[in-house]
Amino acid sequence: MADITDITQAKGGWLAGHELEQVRGQLPVVYIDALPVRVDPMGEVDEVGLLLRGTEEGQLKRSMVSGRVHVGERIRDALLRHLEKDLGPMALPRIPASPAPFTVVEYFPDPDVTGFHDPRQHAVSLAFVVPVDGDCEPSQEALDLSWLSPSEAMSPEITMEMDGGRDKLLQMALAHCGVLP
Amino acid sequence: MADITDITQAKGGWLAGHELEQVRGQLPVVYIDALPVRVDPMGEVDEVGLLLRGTEEGQLKRSMVSGRVHVGERIRDALLRHLEKDLGPMALPRIPASPAPFTVVEYFPDPDVTGFHDPRQHAVSLAFVVPVDGDCEPSQEALDLSWLSPSEAMSPEITMEMDGGRDKLLQMALAHCGVLP
Amino acid sequence: MADITDITQAKGGWLAGHELEQVRGQLPVVYIDALPVRVDPMGEVDEVGLLLRGTEEGQLKRSMVSGRVHVGERIRDALLRHLEKDLGPMALPRIPASPAPFTVVEYFPDPDVTGFHDPRQHAVSLAFVVPVDGDCEPSQEALDLSWLSPSEAMSPEITMEMDGGRDKLLQMALAHCGVLP
Amino acid sequence: MADITDITQAKGGWLAGHELEQVRGQLPVVYIDALPVRVDPMGEVDEVGLLLRGTEEGQLKRSMVSGRVHVGERIRDALLRHLEKDLGPMALPRIPASPAPFTVVEYFPDPDVTGFHDPRQHAVSLAFVVPVDGDCEPSQEALDLSWLSPSEAMSPEITMEMDGGRDKLLQMALAHCGVLP
Repeated sequence: MADITDITQAKGGWLAGHELEQVRGQLPVVYIDALPVRVDPMGEVDEVGLLLRGTEEGQLKRSMVSGRVHVGERIRDALLRHLEKDLGPMALPRIPASPAPFTVVEYFPDPDVTGFHDPRQHAVSLAFVVPVDGDCEPSQEALDLSWLSPSEAMSPEITMEMDGGRDKLLQMALAHCGVLP
Repeated sequence: MADITDITQAKGGWLAGHELEQVRGQLPVVYIDALPVRVDPMGEVDEVGLLLRGTEEGQLKRSMVSGRVHVGERIRDALLRHLEKDLGPMALPRIPASPAPFTVVEYFPDPDVTGFHDPRQHAVSLAFVVPVDGDCEPSQEALDLSWLSPSEAMSPEITMEMDGGRDKLLQMALAHCGVLP
Repeated sequence: MADITDITQAKGGWLAGHELEQVRGQLPVVYIDALPVRVDPMGEVDEVGLLLRGTEEGQLKRSMVSGRVHVGERIRDALLRHLEKDLGPMALPRIPASPAPFTVVEYFPDPDVTGFHDPRQHAVSLAFVVPVDGDCEPSQEALDLSWLSPSEAMSPEITMEMDGGRDKLLQMALAHCGVLP
Repeated sequence: MADITDITQAKGGWLAGHELEQVRGQLPVVYIDALPVRVDPMGEVDEVGLLLRGTEEGQLKRSMVSGRVHVGERIRDALLRHLEKDLGPMALPRIPASPAPFTVVEYFPDPDVTGFHDPRQHAVSLAFVVPVDGDCEPSQEALDLSWLSPSEAMSPEITMEMDGGRDKLLQMALAHCGVLP
């Protein structure tokens, strides 16, 4: 949920940072969460892709691909835009044919409401698992992109680097794909 | 998507009509669509509930239950709030255990983007089928609440009274439940 | 998956135990798995119901409701039959309106194929979460029926009493409902 | 559901036609139904693939890919096997990561039970939408493979060539993908 994407041109006009701040307190904000996966020829998930980022406080954080849906933008366009931005121009994401997310995550400023937490806003995020072909490379914003087996990804060393409930979302995605370790 | 619900107190403060107008152009607005259904003891859908409303232009329109999600409000709270408002205090909606909608409908001011149309805004609506027990009565805003079999509901006389793509959403809900006529 | 249900009258005729043995080696057998849950008025899962049974070897095993689908029997009829058998005549299961299971579990005699294991057969099981109202009491075959919070159900003391991968299926059901502890 | 696939070697042994006849009356038979689709870069369905076959009675029938799951065979292996058999060796089916079908179709010898009809058996079919890349060519058994837009596929000329409820299953698949015409 990098802030740099918040100052960007949606169809119909710019939404500057201070304007976004203002509307964030008035409406839930629509997001997408996408877990990039490598699948075998039978479609089974072999590996999941997690991005590593540094925070302003100097911590390392793992996350899946995530970002805001712009006004006038379709969910599938937002998925493709965020996946291409985070995985690079040579990645080939296979956006699902069905518009239904495997789950909906409700991030609240109060971490006790749902267990999913975003200090900045109330976000309603549609979560998808997206098989990705092609070569992936992390964007400038990310320090690294790791492809991990489901059991590696659910190891304590990795999940302790995921915050806001994102370790639980990862677990839900693996459950959905039938590959819980 | 009655406007009267737009001037209402969400957790954290009022959002007046003119403020809503302003943010509507800046962010997609989160909605829920809920199709009330009567089910038999094996869970199969017997009947669907459609509301009849009069428009300002004097037309009659059929619709399912629909409305905005407030900031700070959970999806399941919004579902319960809108179902109780439209079906009356004696209705017992059975909100689904899973937070995943059966589909996501993207309403745009431009009717050609997705086929789902809302002249006022870009709305991202999470759609659910909700079995309802108890006695239902239409709220003041609605003229009538009809319980129709799937084939009655999909008849041309009924679907011609549904606009903005809501006849297609009804068809998708029936398909999801395995009861397409 | 109690054997007593295997000698039973399906529409069209009896299928005795030795006949079932014979066909079990020739075709995958269709099963249902159903997790009974107690939900709050917003539909969120408060508790899950687990049956406690003694095995012939004198061990205690926890499981959800499970059983075979008969020839000529609909999935929803099989769900209702097994839930009523295991939870007693005063239970009111709310069979889902949609025929789509939240996952499909493939039990194999070889535990390494999918991690789901049934020594007797290749079973393809359609898994559902079923909210239950009314009074539940375990049938004669079960020693106990416990209603546990999601975190109690996922505690090591409980999951170690679940075999064949059923602890993983429980986790998948909780993930589907958005209530992973 | 071509009979030629019924005499085939599953892991663990042959199941000859007359043996299959015998067990068909004793257990529901597990099937898969797969709708091949061509998708655009955003994942949206552009076209669906329908096979044209001649019946013994000299009629022309349209269908999606369909077939039995063998004992010892995983659902995803059966999906890949049937898709490769019907679409040829150059087709690249993208089997879904999730094992959950978008619907379950129950075919009965009695056409009135569910509206889905198979005169030979009670079949429980797990239905999937499968994006396909690569070059597809119909197998020997099929006369043709047509790629049709959703509205072409749902036209009366096409759906009248689909029997056993397969036109309804096609409609359910399109509804699931959000592309009902």
